[in-house]
Amino acid sequence: MKSIKLKSRPEGKPTLSNFEFVEEDKTLTISDGEILLEAAYVSVDPYLRGRMSDAKSYVEPFKLNEPVHSGVVAKVLESKNEKFQIGDYVSGMLNWSTQQVSNGEGLNKVDPEKAPLSTYLGVLGMTGLTAYLGLTEIGKPKKDETIVVSGAAGAVGSVVGQIAKILGLRVIGIAGTDEKIEMLKSKFGFDEGINYNTTKDMKSAIAEAAPNGVDVYFDNVGGPISDAVLFSINQFARIIICGAISVYNETELPTSLSVQPFLVKNSALMQGFIVSNYAEKFPEAIQKLAGWLAEEKLTYTETIVDGFDNIPQAFIDLFEGKNKGKMIVKI
Amino acid sequence: MKSIKLKSRPEGKPTLSNFEFVEEDKTLTISDGEILLEAAYVSVDPYLRGRMSDAKSYVEPFKLNEPVHSGVVAKVLESKNEKFQIGDYVSGMLNWSTQQVSNGEGLNKVDPEKAPLSTYLGVLGMTGLTAYLGLTEIGKPKKDETIVVSGAAGAVGSVVGQIAKILGLRVIGIAGTDEKIEMLKSKFGFDEGINYNTTKDMKSAIAEAAPNGVDVYFDNVGGPISDAVLFSINQFARIIICGAISVYNETELPTSLSVQPFLVKNSALMQGFIVSNYAEKFPEAIQKLAGWLAEEKLTYTETIVDGFDNIPQAFIDLFEGKNKGKMIVKI
Repeated sequence: MKSIKLKSRPEGKPTLSNFEFVEEDKTLTISDGEILLEAAYVSVDPYLRGRMSDAKSYVEPFKLNEPVHSGVVAKVLESKNEKFQIGDYVSGMLNWSTQQVSNGEGLNKVDPEKAPLSTYLGVLGMTGLTAYLGLTEIGKPKKDETIVVSGAAGAVGSVVGQIAKILGLRVIGIAGTDEKIEMLKSKFGFDEGINYNTTKDMKSAIAEAAPNGVDVYFDNVGGPISDAVLFSINQFARIIICGAISVYNETELPTSLSVQPFLVKNSALMQGFIVSNYAEKFPEAIQKLAGWLAEEKLTYTETIVDGFDNIPQAFIDLFEGKNKGKMIVKI
Repeated sequence: MKSIKLKSRPEGKPTLSNFEFVEEDKTLTISDGEILLEAAYVSVDPYLRGRMSDAKSYVEPFKLNEPVHSGVVAKVLESKNEKFQIGDYVSGMLNWSTQQVSNGEGLNKVDPEKAPLSTYLGVLGMTGLTAYLGLTEIGKPKKDETIVVSGAAGAVGSVVGQIAKILGLRVIGIAGTDEKIEMLKSKFGFDEGINYNTTKDMKSAIAEAAPNGVDVYFDNVGGPISDAVLFSINQFARIIICGAISVYNETELPTSLSVQPFLVKNSALMQGFIVSNYAEKFPEAIQKLAGWLAEEKLTYTETIVDGFDNIPQAFIDLFEGKNKGKMIVKI
């Protein structure tokens, strides 16, 4: 049985030395009400970087010398809990361990017949819920409006763009390679794509791609890209702050263009979005997402890395933009 | 008949040379449906600075070589409009002119018997509406929550703080002199006041004044003061961006701490507020304000400057914080 623990808190960009691999030669036993789980797929996500710091945040930071945890799909190996049978698959927040014991709380059964198991970490999991609920609850998109999505080729961004297309918006994606831009347009149906690594004047590029201005900005990145979008926002624009991957690794508090004058000039709204605050809307959202997936209106990209030992590297690679879509480790 | 025109657009801080005094020796005549008005009180407000620039904004910039306009209370000298009688007082957006002709559109009759005429530019006018509607519509304050108000001794800020007290909040005001801080506490009933000019560590001072964190931040100033407040915001905090007097005169786009990480960590909301978007709520709001005023739950401070010729200087003085409460010029 193997686990990956947080050995030290990253300073700046996380490195392999922040993690410790622990191998134990023991047999896990379960008590009444518990189940024994074997990890099948592990999700690595940018937000985990925040939990590795001990700064005040919306969730408790990870404890040092304990296993990191994230979204995991696991198989039930043994069960003394009537809700779960041997062979069932479940998804939930679980440890980075090959095997673990759970009382079943917070776990949902998932059906490998209905959709590939990995999608329950992605488009039918937190990723899809974040995209759908962030967009609809804060973004309140209306047909024919224009949306800009940053981190557009990432797991959440690519789903946001597709949902926005389904809802009838003009969709502009920002990503970091020409290959990703091509994928946004050909695979996900974005109207326009902007490569921030090759575009000199982001402000003009956004203005050009959004001739009617920007009504909704789904922000996964923060930093200078988000500064550039501000110049194009319309009256009553809604800005969803879903993540700030560009600054997660900063050791100093980042500065940027003051947003306040833009917000007051445009009566615009900017709101932080954390999917767990919208739990009561999950069933309805999952139904929507599963429906669009079945109708093939929604597609997804995964970057699947093989092997438990590669979890930390896969996580680190997120900050280099090495993933396309959802980054998942197959155990 | 005298008028004050915008001669040139201010670069940075406005100066007297941006304005032109024009004296015309002519008698104004009115046609059917029109009224002849004589200015009684003129409101000068920080937001006018924005209209003097030709940057894209929520309102048209002032035209060069035409009279500036702002909130004015005026007396009807002649009338060919059945809605107005000679001797009536009206309030509305009018020119900086001693006399002018109007068709009555957008003007409201005000009653000098019910409240002093100047209050129709202040606590019973745009100032009070901005305070009440900004606080309630975006701030959604709840009893026992904590609010921070910047520009607290200003026209809007002092009303915001008092309404927040009426609604049962803990109220912390930020202002720039000890005299203003004293006034916040003794006259307006604020619980705490912080003098940003004498406080070295604003971040700690705010944390200390708000031991339970900040739920609502009514922001009139922007800049470093607003940066400091971010460190104390609570989960689901609401930040009303009502003004940014600290940056109105900047010639470069201002930078500050990136707000995005704070918003996402705290699922917090930041929204630009412009009172004119809430016109349908004005009657209800005025009724509330007039009620509190009559019950003496609400009081106000005015800085009244005498003489038409002093309008530009009174406006310029706003940016030095020379006013306490609403700055009004009596003609």
